[in-house]
Amino acid sequence: MLFVTSNEGKFEEARSILDVELQRKGLEIEEMQAVEIEKVVRHKVNEAYERVEEPVIVEDTGLFIEDWNGLPGALTKFFLEKLGNEKICQILDEERKSSAETCVAYKDKENTKIFKGVVKGKIAEEPKGEGFGWDPIFVPKGHERTFGEMTTEEKNRLSMRNKALSKVRAYLSDD
Amino acid sequence: MLFVTSNEGKFEEARSILDVELQRKGLEIEEMQAVEIEKVVRHKVNEAYERVEEPVIVEDTGLFIEDWNGLPGALTKFFLEKLGNEKICQILDEERKSSAETCVAYKDKENTKIFKGVVKGKIAEEPKGEGFGWDPIFVPKGHERTFGEMTTEEKNRLSMRNKALSKVRAYLSDD
Repeated sequence: MLFVTSNEGKFEEARSILDVELQRKGLEIEEMQAVEIEKVVRHKVNEAYERVEEPVIVEDTGLFIEDWNGLPGALTKFFLEKLGNEKICQILDEERKSSAETCVAYKDKENTKIFKGVVKGKIAEEPKGEGFGWDPIFVPKGHERTFGEMTTEEKNRLSMRNKALSKVRAYLSDD
Repeated sequence: MLFVTSNEGKFEEARSILDVELQRKGLEIEEMQAVEIEKVVRHKVNEAYERVEEPVIVEDTGLFIEDWNGLPGALTKFFLEKLGNEKICQILDEERKSSAETCVAYKDKENTKIFKGVVKGKIAEEPKGEGFGWDPIFVPKGHERTFGEMTTEEKNRLSMRNKALSKVRAYLSDD
């Protein structure tokens, strides 16, 4: 199976969770404009399958701020690029509830399936810790620390990507 | 020449400004994800030209909040959809400077050209007046009222779309 991603870290995480032979493939695919991650991965997996013509997965992950009615979602990367973590923490008021969501889309000759993993939590008052993207500003529910303050293992155990990939694993082993 | 847009109002505005025979064509074109409007129209006009194979224009318009480093830009429609005008006014603090930008992309067999129209201004403290999209929250520089409080004529005379289309007109009449 192919995982179309340019992100080596995401690929390694998927390979450690999925019980199949997985190869990484970088493909330039134009992502569609949408807030909903499900829409973005559905579009992307169709584009990817058309090019590779074999079983393929793609994934996308984003942050959904409840008080912002789900923004930025699939547009999170633009918020990071333009505002950065510190500014995102600042412009939110009291209401900081949010959720982190990964969708993995799988496509083969017969089927297209979307697998979703969600972690509820909140946006921190200020960035803390290291890590990728918005790791330093997301505090998962039931925890005091941001993803950025956790070890990679600890974060991966909790993560929305793990949840989504575990569903993919279950689906593939059902075949 | 074709104007690929699903928006009848935009088409009428273009027809009144451009000195050419203009026809409207609705095409389902996936817009690329970007904040910069220039990127979005460049991608869109290429897609459009590939399908219609005759001289074509497309346009996109967005709101760039200075303190947000240019967000939401081409993503403005998602801010409107998810937050709405009232919420956008609320989440900004003191610094409300912004600009409204239209890019029109033109493509024929030989050339691809981008024409930009910018109106500086600010986001109102609260929505005022009627009108399309974010008209009720944008106050152009040197004015006290929002686009939504102006007559269509008054707004069109000032507008970023008018500025961009006037440049298209000048370019086409140079041929």
